[in-house]
Amino acid sequence: MALASVAVALGMAMMLYKRVKAAETGNATMNKIADQIQRGAKSFLKVEYTYLAVFVAVFSAILLIVFSVITNRADNTEGVRMAANFIAGAALSALAGWIGMVVATDANVRVTNAADKGGMSSALRLAFSAGAVMGFIVVGLGLLGISCFYLLMTLGNPFPNDVTGQLGRKFAVQMLSGFGFGASSIALFARVAGGIYTKAADVGADLVGKVEAGIPEDDPRNPAVIADNVGDNVGDVAGMGADLFESFVGSIIAAATLANGDNVLIALPFWIAGVGVLCSSIGFFFVSTKDNASQKELLSALHKGTTSASILVLGGSAGVIGGLFGQEGDSYGWYVFACIVIGLICGILIGEATEFFTSYSFTPVQSITNAGITGPATVIIQGLGIGMLSTFPTVFLIVLTILGCNALAGQYGIALAAVGMLSTLGITLATDAYGPVADNAGGIAEMADLDAGVRATTDALDALGNTTAATGKGFAIGSAVLTSLSLLVAFRDAAGILPGALDIMDPVVMAGVLFGAMLPYLFAALTMLSVRKAAGSIILEVRRQFSEIPGIMEGTAEADSDRCIEISTVSSLQEMILPGLWAILAPMCVGFTIGPKCLTGMLGGAISSGMMLAIMMSNAGGAWDNSKKYIEIEGACGGKGTETHKACVVGDTVGDPFKDTSGPALNILIKLMSMISLVMAPLIYQNGDWDNWYFGIIPIVLLIVGSYICYVLYWKNIADITAPVGKAKDEEEKA
Amino acid sequence: MALASVAVALGMAMMLYKRVKAAETGNATMNKIADQIQRGAKSFLKVEYTYLAVFVAVFSAILLIVFSVITNRADNTEGVRMAANFIAGAALSALAGWIGMVVATDANVRVTNAADKGGMSSALRLAFSAGAVMGFIVVGLGLLGISCFYLLMTLGNPFPNDVTGQLGRKFAVQMLSGFGFGASSIALFARVAGGIYTKAADVGADLVGKVEAGIPEDDPRNPAVIADNVGDNVGDVAGMGADLFESFVGSIIAAATLANGDNVLIALPFWIAGVGVLCSSIGFFFVSTKDNASQKELLSALHKGTTSASILVLGGSAGVIGGLFGQEGDSYGWYVFACIVIGLICGILIGEATEFFTSYSFTPVQSITNAGITGPATVIIQGLGIGMLSTFPTVFLIVLTILGCNALAGQYGIALAAVGMLSTLGITLATDAYGPVADNAGGIAEMADLDAGVRATTDALDALGNTTAATGKGFAIGSAVLTSLSLLVAFRDAAGILPGALDIMDPVVMAGVLFGAMLPYLFAALTMLSVRKAAGSIILEVRRQFSEIPGIMEGTAEADSDRCIEISTVSSLQEMILPGLWAILAPMCVGFTIGPKCLTGMLGGAISSGMMLAIMMSNAGGAWDNSKKYIEIEGACGGKGTETHKACVVGDTVGDPFKDTSGPALNILIKLMSMISLVMAPLIYQNGDWDNWYFGIIPIVLLIVGSYICYVLYWKNIADITAPVGKAKDEEEKA
Repeated sequence: MALASVAVALGMAMMLYKRVKAAETGNATMNKIADQIQRGAKSFLKVEYTYLAVFVAVFSAILLIVFSVITNRADNTEGVRMAANFIAGAALSALAGWIGMVVATDANVRVTNAADKGGMSSALRLAFSAGAVMGFIVVGLGLLGISCFYLLMTLGNPFPNDVTGQLGRKFAVQMLSGFGFGASSIALFARVAGGIYTKAADVGADLVGKVEAGIPEDDPRNPAVIADNVGDNVGDVAGMGADLFESFVGSIIAAATLANGDNVLIALPFWIAGVGVLCSSIGFFFVSTKDNASQKELLSALHKGTTSASILVLGGSAGVIGGLFGQEGDSYGWYVFACIVIGLICGILIGEATEFFTSYSFTPVQSITNAGITGPATVIIQGLGIGMLSTFPTVFLIVLTILGCNALAGQYGIALAAVGMLSTLGITLATDAYGPVADNAGGIAEMADLDAGVRATTDALDALGNTTAATGKGFAIGSAVLTSLSLLVAFRDAAGILPGALDIMDPVVMAGVLFGAMLPYLFAALTMLSVRKAAGSIILEVRRQFSEIPGIMEGTAEADSDRCIEISTVSSLQEMILPGLWAILAPMCVGFTIGPKCLTGMLGGAISSGMMLAIMMSNAGGAWDNSKKYIEIEGACGGKGTETHKACVVGDTVGDPFKDTSGPALNILIKLMSMISLVMAPLIYQNGDWDNWYFGIIPIVLLIVGSYICYVLYWKNIADITAPVGKAKDEEEKA
Repeated sequence: MALASVAVALGMAMMLYKRVKAAETGNATMNKIADQIQRGAKSFLKVEYTYLAVFVAVFSAILLIVFSVITNRADNTEGVRMAANFIAGAALSALAGWIGMVVATDANVRVTNAADKGGMSSALRLAFSAGAVMGFIVVGLGLLGISCFYLLMTLGNPFPNDVTGQLGRKFAVQMLSGFGFGASSIALFARVAGGIYTKAADVGADLVGKVEAGIPEDDPRNPAVIADNVGDNVGDVAGMGADLFESFVGSIIAAATLANGDNVLIALPFWIAGVGVLCSSIGFFFVSTKDNASQKELLSALHKGTTSASILVLGGSAGVIGGLFGQEGDSYGWYVFACIVIGLICGILIGEATEFFTSYSFTPVQSITNAGITGPATVIIQGLGIGMLSTFPTVFLIVLTILGCNALAGQYGIALAAVGMLSTLGITLATDAYGPVADNAGGIAEMADLDAGVRATTDALDALGNTTAATGKGFAIGSAVLTSLSLLVAFRDAAGILPGALDIMDPVVMAGVLFGAMLPYLFAALTMLSVRKAAGSIILEVRRQFSEIPGIMEGTAEADSDRCIEISTVSSLQEMILPGLWAILAPMCVGFTIGPKCLTGMLGGAISSGMMLAIMMSNAGGAWDNSKKYIEIEGACGGKGTETHKACVVGDTVGDPFKDTSGPALNILIKLMSMISLVMAPLIYQNGDWDNWYFGIIPIVLLIVGSYICYVLYWKNIADITAPVGKAKDEEEKA
């Protein structure tokens, strides 16, 4: 079933990609710009993947050695299996990101052309098709990978004395954690590096172009503008693809692990995911718009697709449950079904709540805009307040889901709720991923000097994309929390810790909770500060080009965009190292030295604190963005160019790293740390005793040395890093 | 011993108060202003205490009835005891706040005069004396209250069959939780209402005076200026006094509860607190400065006082431990001593770390100032990043303290670390509380049109106060976390929950953790948004006076300051209701209906998430404030009036509610919720069974109805609330 769905998903993706490719690409200028963007995105991903290949090689070697040495199964294949899973997870995640990026960069210029020639409806259809390619590739490759690797892992016979096969299945599922670990690592690095890249280029281009040189946004004379457009593709497309690949795969692995070797319960998440993929494909065809549709009609067209997919999933799941559990005459199946339904509904309601807090049709965003009347400070206070307030409904829904599913079907029910929530990912990702394509299409229209009407069309599409992107983020956070909790329980079981041993009142557990609650703040701080630092290096380069290349400002000489892309690439990848180190090494340090009690506490603390911070940052960022759009599109508070507008632009700039760099990266942080712990579990609690504490020495040394090197290289003179911008400005003022 | 220390502390306070009163008060204008401020502060506290009296009456009636009905002791005095404790805790906390406010408002004009006539050193000495009155009153009344009430509670004989007296002592300590609950409630309301008052008046006065009417800061024509000065006294003095009264009392109650009825272990925290009070008194006399001392010398003079007090406490504690444990020949005593030492050192190191992140002598604050070169958005990003980063050292130190003390002396050791950390509160509070006095003195100098040199002197004192205030906040957060954790364990024991029953992997516990982690965000959101709303009502009133009172702008007619004070009072007290409701009712709702498991999880989540948010908000706020001061005092980035300065002013305005309203209130939130749970414990787990779930119906109904009423009254049209400011501005522009 799962493999059949994979065939459908990949077939859909191929068909849609052909459809995108068949569209016309417009004039030569447009093609040249699109080509530059694609080359830039490819060159970034190539360098990024080189770094990641080294990382994957090192870690797969470690997994191979460690799991081969400590293996206690009948055949000595544990190391090979774990390493193979890890490599496969990483490779497929990277592949999903790469394909998404290629499709998006192929599509952008075609969407510009469609907006020019065909109008709103055909541009939407094309952009949505490109997004759908991404959606179906992610779910297709994800389901393909874990299905095949689960089957592969059941090959061989590590437990010859186990007639029921239960141990073998448990073992196979445990090996899949390596797959999830691979996918998580790539997701983390892709999200962090991509997020820093896109916002650093954005901020850098704006500050040096608009503020210093006084040239408009998206002006081709600014060598950082192409880098800005590249950033949308590597951050919002490739980064997000790897992120959701990991969520999708992670939720299935978590549920399968909690099945405890039961054949039916292991099969169920694969089936549900398969049904979800099929239903998403059908849902895709429900999306159709008439020409000249209004913004509201466009949104309802997209909603039609996701809603019909959700309803179909309900029917399909009921069928699957009937088939799988029917022969056993077991009512547990229907309790599990109820969990899937709860998960689906919870996801939809979280989306609604997010929309309320981030759309300018409602009072929260309007209150931020109004706060702009008294200046930027009140915009920031109001935005942060609204962001914090918005944690309430999402947390309330997730808490009800946890309590409800636990009462119905225990821990497994909670894991299944996450699978249910993500089952329609194929289509929800499509509505999400088309945004950056529309954004890029607008940039191309501007740079290629097309009609203002074209830009207006792409702007409308982009605004629509903002709403769907915010919804998608709420969804991603909700599913990440449910999945992480399930992984945490799976870790407890795999580490052989008995229920009751992790009392939250135990000071060791509570110390872990406090330490864990701090990690998302550290992580968010490092990524936010990195955006500003990376922007600094771009500013220096652009300024050099402006002064050294004669004729650049008159348009007679060409700006060296490639050099800017190269610099953004290098600096964003450098900045990725420190947060990455902490995410991967912190669980190892705590788990091996202080022990699994403290580690579990740490993960619990990180999940709860990370969830709040992620919701707050994503929603505040989205709300600030739309409080600005409320002025620009609806003409609130006097419209563009007023002091109120300027105040809201400040909010929007603060919101950029909130919603596109730090916020989304926190989801991956909590999933990655849980996944690593699950992988480490057999090492921590070997042969019924916790005796590998010395394993902790290496990660601790690495973490301290790594942090120190990064501190000396990049952080020591954090005050000076920001100085170049100021110094040059001072010199300019003097001149 | 404890009562002897009380006598010393109260004697010191009286002596110092006489010294303050003996100082000269300056000319008639100064006296008139000072009188207005004192009248305003008194009128606010009177109204506030009227509200609180109703609250206390209602709650003591509830405690009386509930504990009388469900009592299961030999004599039927439980309800009376609990109610009496609650009333006493509330009354003493309110009294400490009142006295602090009276002293501060008596001292401010005298400090202005001393700065005018005697110079820096005599002004410092006077302001520091006023702060010390506050410090000694807080510790004196605190220690007096719990010592007396502990003795009172051991009277009567509820357990006639218990020969060892252990049950009686446990019972007496359990009753003290009512005292802590009373103190916590007053602290919460005083901090929240005072915090909203002070920042709303500040923001309102600035926006309508400086921005709209174009008159300078602290101009007597602006009727909101007196309210701004009143705010410093009711927020930073009375609010802080109630806050630290509660911390001091709470840490002793937590340690005594964990003593489990052991005579020596119950006595120890009282002894240590008593020693601390004596040593603080001695330390006070170490603070002396020569005239014309530099900023650095002033700071080291203050440090001399706290350091010598700390060293004396070490010696004194060793003596106490030797005396109490010596007769038993028990090495446990020395492990406990080590915990006290760890607590003291941890407090000092947290102070150092806080100084690093919030003083402009170090790179973090300088990096924020430099970020101002590229505008307000980068100031906000950098400040939030630095604030988040600053959670790391504090959490690391607290985690080490918890792990270390737990290894040495178990849960009791952790509670003793908090007592150790707070033992020198008498003198640390003095260094903290003198800041607002200096601030007020500066305001009076400005309004009374004194020499610019006077203002420069008070400004220097104020800047010094900023540094000590930041240190004090780090300290308050650290001790709050340790105390709350101890209260949590005490709750577990009192509720009769067995160790191991609160597995963090239990979905019910984890659902509680997530819900609890959300509460600090909700609380911070409500208080931050309230500041902006309350400021709006002040702006409307000032604008009305400017247009309706003829001659007000020419200085011929007097501004109606009292009306502004009245409005600030009413609106800040209204705004206090919703956050207060949540803080008090949320633990009851969860504890009674979902059960003690979920409640414990909720408290754990609230402590961890609240700690991070509180550190982040306090430190980011302090860093923003000093990034502005770095420009104003040191002339960095071109000095006052530049665009960079303006950008840093935006950061400072955002930081105001961060560091003075929401951040400090979070400390109290986590302690209050833990204390309420401890009070509720016997009700939740009655007769070995959890059977009072229907008690939860009332708080749930109250919370829903209360939230709805507040929503309709204040929040429904949150966008419109901000509109008046804008509308009037539009009209003005039209005119």
